[in-house]
Formats: sequence, structure tokens, C-alpha cells
Amino acid sequence: MNREISVFAPATVSNVACGFDVMGFAVNEPGDIATVRQIDEPGVFLINVSGDDGRLPREPSKNTAGIAVIEFLKRINAPGGIEIELHKKMPLGSGLGSSAASAVAAVFAANILFDKPLSRNELLPLVLEAEKAACGTAHADNAAPALLGGFILIRSYNPLDTISLAVPDELICTILHPALEIRTEYARKILSDKIFLKDAVTQWGNIGGLVAGLLKKDYELIGRSLQDVIAEPLRAKLIPGFSEIKKAAMSAGALGCSISGSGPAIFALSKSKSTANNVGQSMKDACEKKGINSSIYISEINNEGPRVISQKE
Amino acid sequence: MNREISVFAPATVSNVACGFDVMGFAVNEPGDIATVRQIDEPGVFLINVSGDDGRLPREPSKNTAGIAVIEFLKRINAPGGIEIELHKKMPLGSGLGSSAASAVAAVFAANILFDKPLSRNELLPLVLEAEKAACGTAHADNAAPALLGGFILIRSYNPLDTISLAVPDELICTILHPALEIRTEYARKILSDKIFLKDAVTQWGNIGGLVAGLLKKDYELIGRSLQDVIAEPLRAKLIPGFSEIKKAAMSAGALGCSISGSGPAIFALSKSKSTANNVGQSMKDACEKKGINSSIYISEINNEGPRVISQKE
Repeated sequence: MNREISVFAPATVSNVACGFDVMGFAVNEPGDIATVRQIDEPGVFLINVSGDDGRLPREPSKNTAGIAVIEFLKRINAPGGIEIELHKKMPLGSGLGSSAASAVAAVFAANILFDKPLSRNELLPLVLEAEKAACGTAHADNAAPALLGGFILIRSYNPLDTISLAVPDELICTILHPALEIRTEYARKILSDKIFLKDAVTQWGNIGGLVAGLLKKDYELIGRSLQDVIAEPLRAKLIPGFSEIKKAAMSAGALGCSISGSGPAIFALSKSKSTANNVGQSMKDACEKKGINSSIYISEINNEGPRVISQKE
Repeated sequence: MNREISVFAPATVSNVACGFDVMGFAVNEPGDIATVRQIDEPGVFLINVSGDDGRLPREPSKNTAGIAVIEFLKRINAPGGIEIELHKKMPLGSGLGSSAASAVAAVFAANILFDKPLSRNELLPLVLEAEKAACGTAHADNAAPALLGGFILIRSYNPLDTISLAVPDELICTILHPALEIRTEYARKILSDKIFLKDAVTQWGNIGGLVAGLLKKDYELIGRSLQDVIAEPLRAKLIPGFSEIKKAAMSAGALGCSISGSGPAIFALSKSKSTANNVGQSMKDACEKKGINSSIYISEINNEGPRVISQKE
């Protein structure tokens, strides 16, 4: 039997309120699992996709997991091919970096299959290629934390410059995923290509504050900085009950609460697990009052990124 | 003889490339000196102003030093009055926070005269009142570092929230002051009230990077983050030779270089004093090639803020 590796790659919260397109962090759940096998036949084959209700493309060249592995094989110029099974363990179109998680799981596994010819940082452009093909633009705020783990600042896209920010130990993330779906493209379209300078100034004060709060382990400062005057006011309209859910999170003691990526998932950060649990229950109740079912995920920041869950030689 | 205190308050570099209106730091020179005396007659009297070629208003209610002290006396509701002598030891209209330095020196001295009824943070709104009266708007990016010392992030203006950022030891600032003058109001007018979202994204990546670089003591990251795509491209046109001066600074080993506040002063940050000296000489040479005289100041970041230089009981 050929060598086989299964890897879990995490969901990610991007934007993180004030950090539109430049910040994201990984969580412990949900996430995707990719199982890859080395085969003699050249090419990349997506032999099984589960958990997506048949909605994702089965052609490897159109699926982010497939594209990332195709790019990987091109990059290392190796003979033979790779077979991929993709098990979606997280919702699609959720604002939790589903496409990035699939690509990261597959390419991270493929790299181990070939005895790690590339570093994690070298894998990142391959995942961005996949994101670009799937979403039209190569935003790194899901891909980078999914692959590198932790809390990531994308200082620059050109050249790509990712900065890992240490996270205080007691920082816990609560994610509410309402049973709704928002197309990333649509959530982008409702943003204008110009913003007021005064709003930009507000936003960059908060970005500086969030980075300082994380590195100084100042939970109150993190909380005060979790404000978004650019995307949230526009995107909140796409999520019925957003303001009630946010209010519920804050009343239950969250440091801050905003939309994860382009939504509809909503994240809150809290100091301590017990607060994060209460926050989750309050958010879920507020969501259900609007007649919308939801799932809750509670997790520390995932500092590890993808992890091998099984390996057969 | 009545009690008398003399205080030096430092010049400040605001904006710091990427941090338009939200970042600033204090230097050790230049700066202003205010001497204040407690008097029996109620009111605030500006009895002497030197070093300004007669250009600053002599009426206390129109001079930032006077206004700050008037606001101070209102705030503490004390009997008697204060006499101020203001010695300008720095250029006016330079982009180095001249008006803030005068206000900080005077109000810091007045507070000591009355046995410190107010904390530094409580003095800040008084200085902002003075800035507002003198410049039209109460920007805190000079006032806060001049008063609090160090490298300051203004996370929020409403409510005012200033964050002190520790600075790595070897970070040295070089300031070139060309013999030119730019009115702050004019430098503001050339900025548009709307900016491209993509430029804002670039800017907030850099702000996050600069804050992370300072707190992680990562000089390279500080250097990569010292980029301004919002104000510098427009304001550079007001400073003849800016691009040559910046190039000279970078070639001499500066981590980064940009306009201080609204200019015409130009600052560079370097790792080590000897590099900062070379950077200063190169900037001065480039400036003089354009036929413009200039002064150079080289200094560590001033973590202390204002300091008492003499005191008579």
C-alpha cells in the first residue's frame, strides 16, 4: 500500500473587527480533514469529497484542495501523483475560511508525503493560488493563520509579509455560526472602494491597539480595540439579528464581538473559558430568538495550525 | 520672591509614517522652556516670549502656553494667578509639535507650582484645548508624547485613549529641519477627505507592523513598516528635495524615513547612534544640494517627557 497522510487544518477568524484584510487567527475547531496518498500515475486526483452536500467542485483544478496540491507538485517538480480525499468538517460560505482550510490540509499533507521539501512559509503562496482561483482574490487573512497557526498580521501583500503575534493564554474564542450563507463576493461588493479618512484613522488606532493589547497581554485594551467602523456597519445588515447577538455577547462578558470574515459567522473573544461558554449560550439564544438555528464553537487560539491525525507507511 | 519653576518640554515626531493622527514620539531635542511664577493677582500673564522673532501671539488667551495654563486654573479652581515666560527653543511651523511643546512646558510647570493637583493624564485635555484653539483641531499625536514621553499610540480620540509603547533601546531618531515653513492647515487641506480602501488596508498592515516591531524589539520589522501611502505622497510635494533626502537617509542605513507631522521636518529612525549620525549628515548634504539650509537633531526616544530644569522656592 502507498504512503497515506491525514491532516486536520483549522477554521480561521479573519478581519478580527478592526483588521480588515490584514488580521486573522486559527481556532481548534471546526476544520477540514484531507487524506492524501502518493500514487504512481502523474497528476492530482480528488477521489472523494464528503460533508459538502455535493456542492464543491470535484475537478481538482477547481477545488482549493486540488489546486494547492497541483501547485505543490509543479513547485517541487516531482514524478508521480497524489490522490486526495477531502472531508469537510465545517460549513461552507460561513466566513470561517472554509476554502483555505481545505487547501491547507491537503497541501500540508502532501508536503509531508514528499518528506517536507518546502517550509510552511513556502507553502503559503500555493494556498494563496488556490484561494485566488476559488474566490477571485488572494487574501491571506484566512490562509496564513490556517497554515501558520496563531494570530497573524499580514503586514504587506506585496511582498507577502506575515507577522506572528503572541496571544495571551486566557484568550478564548466563541464562534456562532447561524444557519445562513453569505457569498464572499457579495459581502465584498457592498463595501465601497473609498472610505472616509476619519474612519480610516479610527480603524488604524484600533489596529494599533489590538496588536499592542495582544503583545502586552492587556485584555481590556484588546476589548477596547475590537471595533470596526468600515466593514461591520455594512455587512451586519446581511446577518439578521446581528446587533442583538453582539449585544448578548457583550452583556455576557465578552471583550469584543464582530463578524468573522465576510460572515455570517460571528466571533467573540473572552478572557477565560467559562466566560466564553456563557457568551456562546447567550449568542445562541439571541440567534434563536430570531428563528435562526446555529452552531457554537468554543476554542483557544490554535497556535499549531494544521496537524497530522494519522499516517500510514 | 514667589515660587518659580522652569520646565523643558520636548519636540515630537507625529504620524511616524504609517500612523497618521494616531502615533507620535518625543525626542530629547529640540524643545521649549517655560518659566512660571505664582502671583497674587488673578489671571494668566505672558510676560515674555523669546525665540519666536515676535511671531507668536502675546495675548495669553491666544498663545498655547497661555491657554493651557488658563484651562489649568479653571480646572483646579485656585485663587491667584500665574506669570509665564516662554522661551522657544525650536522652530515654529516645523512639523515638530512646537505649539504642543509650549503648552506642555507651561502647564506641566504650573501643575508643579500648585503641588501637582492633576496627573499627567489629567493635564492632557488642557493641552488639547490649547492645540484646538491654536490649530483648529485637537490632534493628540504631538500633545500626548510631549506630555507623557515615549512612543504613544492614540487608540481613540473619543474617549481619549493613549497607549504607551515600549521602544527598543538602540532606536535613534534623526531629524532634519529644512529652513522652510509649512502651515499645518495647508498641509491638511491637500489631503482628501476620502481615501481608497486598498490604501487604507496597506496603511493598517503597516501600523500593526510598526506596533508589533516596537513591542517585539524587531528593528527590521519597524523599518519595513515605516511606510505611508496616505499623507507622504501628497505632502512630499511641499518639501523641495524630499525624495532625494529620503533616499540619502535610506542609503546611509536608516530603517525608515518620512515627514514629521505635516512637515517640513523629516525624520529617520536608525539602529545605533553612529548610523543615526551618518544618516543625519547624508540628509543634510542632500538638502543643501537643493540650496536649502537645514538643522539636524539626533536623539534617543525621550521616555521622560517634560522635565524640570530649575526651581526656586
